[in-house]
Amino acid sequence: METTLRDAQAGIGAALDGALAGFDGPVGDAMRHALAGGKRLRGILALESAALFDVPADRAMRAACAIEAVHAYSLVHDDLPCMDDDDLRRGRPTVHRQWDEATAVLAGDALQTLAFELLADPATDPDGAIRADLVLTLAQAAGAAGMVRGQALDIAAESAAAPLSLDEIKALQRLKTGRLLEWPCRAGAILGRADPAPLLDYAAKLGLAFQIADDLLDVEGDADAAGKALRKDAAAGKATFVSHLGAKAARARAVQLVEQAEMSVLIYSEKAATLRKIARYVVARDR
Amino acid sequence: METTLRDAQAGIGAALDGALAGFDGPVGDAMRHALAGGKRLRGILALESAALFDVPADRAMRAACAIEAVHAYSLVHDDLPCMDDDDLRRGRPTVHRQWDEATAVLAGDALQTLAFELLADPATDPDGAIRADLVLTLAQAAGAAGMVRGQALDIAAESAAAPLSLDEIKALQRLKTGRLLEWPCRAGAILGRADPAPLLDYAAKLGLAFQIADDLLDVEGDADAAGKALRKDAAAGKATFVSHLGAKAARARAVQLVEQAEMSVLIYSEKAATLRKIARYVVARDR
Repeated sequence: METTLRDAQAGIGAALDGALAGFDGPVGDAMRHALAGGKRLRGILALESAALFDVPADRAMRAACAIEAVHAYSLVHDDLPCMDDDDLRRGRPTVHRQWDEATAVLAGDALQTLAFELLADPATDPDGAIRADLVLTLAQAAGAAGMVRGQALDIAAESAAAPLSLDEIKALQRLKTGRLLEWPCRAGAILGRADPAPLLDYAAKLGLAFQIADDLLDVEGDADAAGKALRKDAAAGKATFVSHLGAKAARARAVQLVEQAEMSVLIYSEKAATLRKIARYVVARDR
Repeated sequence: METTLRDAQAGIGAALDGALAGFDGPVGDAMRHALAGGKRLRGILALESAALFDVPADRAMRAACAIEAVHAYSLVHDDLPCMDDDDLRRGRPTVHRQWDEATAVLAGDALQTLAFELLADPATDPDGAIRADLVLTLAQAAGAAGMVRGQALDIAAESAAAPLSLDEIKALQRLKTGRLLEWPCRAGAILGRADPAPLLDYAAKLGLAFQIADDLLDVEGDADAAGKALRKDAAAGKATFVSHLGAKAARARAVQLVEQAEMSVLIYSEKAATLRKIARYVVARDR
């Protein structure tokens, strides 16, 4: 990952440290643990989308922290024994392994709350309607009609009689991972009082490419580099883009989607250079 | 409970049904289950506080639904095996008993999200700054410096060497139950663009009286009427207001707090009649 992206990662990490400074005890520590070491992909999308419209960086940073907090909450709860039962995340023990399940439930809960607290604060934008719109759209993306619905469909698929079709996988992933990748792009447009359409198109292509790359990583990746357990899909007999298309065709599809994502933001010309770079990174990443 | 309060309960129930109408599948059903049959105390506090300032009832209803959703989320997660491990709530199986733990985690998560979605929607108030302030204050009340902090302290107390002192119990309960009883009173003032101070004073007294009554209910109540397991505090050797003060002195203290709560809202004269009734109900309830 290049200097621009590494700098953005470090900036988001520092801002998250600041947002968590007041929280002590095991739950506060678990929140910090859950937020440490991520790629910050969703946060960087917020920063770069907002930068297209010259939004002040400190405002965009609050949206970046909010989406990273929601993403971290979803991982902490998804890793629980009653869900995916994962021991390792970002190369470190998951929260319920490092502490216990109660702390993991509470830390995830509080990370979700923190996201809305960050967005609703007057420091995010002087205009209350903008802040409320950020809250509303994030809640729609994360809730029972968004990400949580995707997670529920994913759980239901495990015990379904027939494996999911390619269209069903697409619909599931658009909810489960797509909505939280789309929101930061939308947030940039909300903060910039701009038309979100080109960014939403970019996010749709990026989200699908991201999920195909994730499926390929599960099949072909190195667990040490990924920092999490791999080969889980095949072991669970799970239908994925790779099981449907084969690795070669899946990779070709991901590359095509990245090209389409890059096209979506051509209208922003040089200002969208980093967004185009992110699209290419998403299929080349090893974690 | 009287007609006025029963009507308010029914109104909140109907509004919650409407808010949940779009959510299907087990998670949607579990959200409805978790929201069914409550006393609606927090929701009624929102309606009655807002009514002091002639806030339109449909706007106050959205705040009432939001606080009931956060309260329900906290109960669903609190009942989980890794937390209080309860089988019964409001006279029915808890969500993880009726469905499973994964559904309970997701339904609780989505109920929290729903609360912020309801508040941030333009239907709650035309002024975005009001909506953002409702979101911000609810997040502060529910998050890692509010209710979740209270829950974490409660868990830590179970394995502490010495039982909590009376002051420590007060501090814990002000966070764990007090903050979610205070917020609807604050929300009424926010929606009414009014000074929240008298209502916050009322809520502080009410919250403490509520907790003492809860401790008394655990010792003296009837599990069938309460619709949940009782005698849990003594079985766990937990320090409570009753273990510190004895039942008689605890009851006297609760009655005194109710009188103080009633005094706090005297300035609203007849408009606060129901708030005074609620304070009296809180110590007389059997569930």
